[in-house]
Amino acid sequence: MTRLVLHNFFRSSTSVRVRAALNLKGLEYDYVAYALRSGAHHGAQHTALNPQGLVPTLVTEHGPLPQSLAIIEWLDEEYPAPPLLPADAWGRARVRSLAHIMALDVHPVNNLRVLQYLEREFGADAAAQAKWFRTWAEPAMQAMETRLAADRETGSFCHGDTPGLADLCLYAQVLNNTRFGIGTDDTPVIGRIFDACMAVPAFERAIPANQPDAV
Amino acid sequence: MTRLVLHNFFRSSTSVRVRAALNLKGLEYDYVAYALRSGAHHGAQHTALNPQGLVPTLVTEHGPLPQSLAIIEWLDEEYPAPPLLPADAWGRARVRSLAHIMALDVHPVNNLRVLQYLEREFGADAAAQAKWFRTWAEPAMQAMETRLAADRETGSFCHGDTPGLADLCLYAQVLNNTRFGIGTDDTPVIGRIFDACMAVPAFERAIPANQPDAV
Repeated sequence: MTRLVLHNFFRSSTSVRVRAALNLKGLEYDYVAYALRSGAHHGAQHTALNPQGLVPTLVTEHGPLPQSLAIIEWLDEEYPAPPLLPADAWGRARVRSLAHIMALDVHPVNNLRVLQYLEREFGADAAAQAKWFRTWAEPAMQAMETRLAADRETGSFCHGDTPGLADLCLYAQVLNNTRFGIGTDDTPVIGRIFDACMAVPAFERAIPANQPDAV
Repeated sequence: MTRLVLHNFFRSSTSVRVRAALNLKGLEYDYVAYALRSGAHHGAQHTALNPQGLVPTLVTEHGPLPQSLAIIEWLDEEYPAPPLLPADAWGRARVRSLAHIMALDVHPVNNLRVLQYLEREFGADAAAQAKWFRTWAEPAMQAMETRLAADRETGSFCHGDTPGLADLCLYAQVLNNTRFGIGTDDTPVIGRIFDACMAVPAFERAIPANQPDAV
């Protein structure tokens, strides 16, 4: 089997998700880092693999695969144990629906390239950027909390008592939120699930501070 | 079987995707409309189903399911014919990866609530909003074009000769792009795939202009 290669960046939330998924599956991979603030991910080395230039891109024996959620779904199909999605269709729907709150409604609007644009084009200072971030993150975290607290499927993790796709997206976003002063005091279910994630070595090894390019 | 109910809005791109998926599967559904500019989707009727308040939410016999991509993946698992994802894992990875360019990197940062915030908080006028929209949409469409043009799996649709998840996300975004003056002259593969989609009645019936709440 060709060794997997992950093109990524230590602080990128989408990279965090994928690293934790690789770790949960027990897969070793080579780590190629791009310093996003320097624009290195838009250089020829990476755009040859992913014309978008965005990280992460996972290089597999079949070729390069961009997009974090597509990578995680593929990993789960290619390496089924331990599963990252439930065995039943409605369970999978629930997990994807929870994961996508984080992955579609919070992260894309709050990532580095967007914050940089706000600063460059609208003169948004740190306070204005933080307000922007919280505008999208806080209601989404509250909605996530409401669903997790209401659903009987919620266990020690988002769906039952083993970590999966929703936990990967949730813990990466909680890590990111701390940079903008959003904690989990008002979202206790999210708080305890985040703690449960961080107690899993696969998750803890994937956090930004534990990567070779961390500064 | 309980009849499916789609809570949505005619112009919402995420609603367009789901309507076309329902049509492709030959599923009938009840249509509940929310006028997004009035904030109706954040009222009690809808937040009881989806605490986020965002459309679309599909109500099924199992309960309500928010998040357009989770809905489409569930429809494809629950109603397998015709399939919206390829039979092989790497094919599914490719289709999800293409779909997510549209669904994660273009739409979330360009939807109504974001444009309204830019206007309210930063005084962004129509020109500044259009510049913002194009900043995220145009490079993503170009990257999509590059991948579609390079991959041998591309057929009359994004993956082979039958429409699927990537086509659903692509055609909804192309429709949205036209509102900001982005056509397909510079992306001929996308242009011909969009035309192929619009020639399919399931896609054509799902466009904003053909909905009961269209104005």
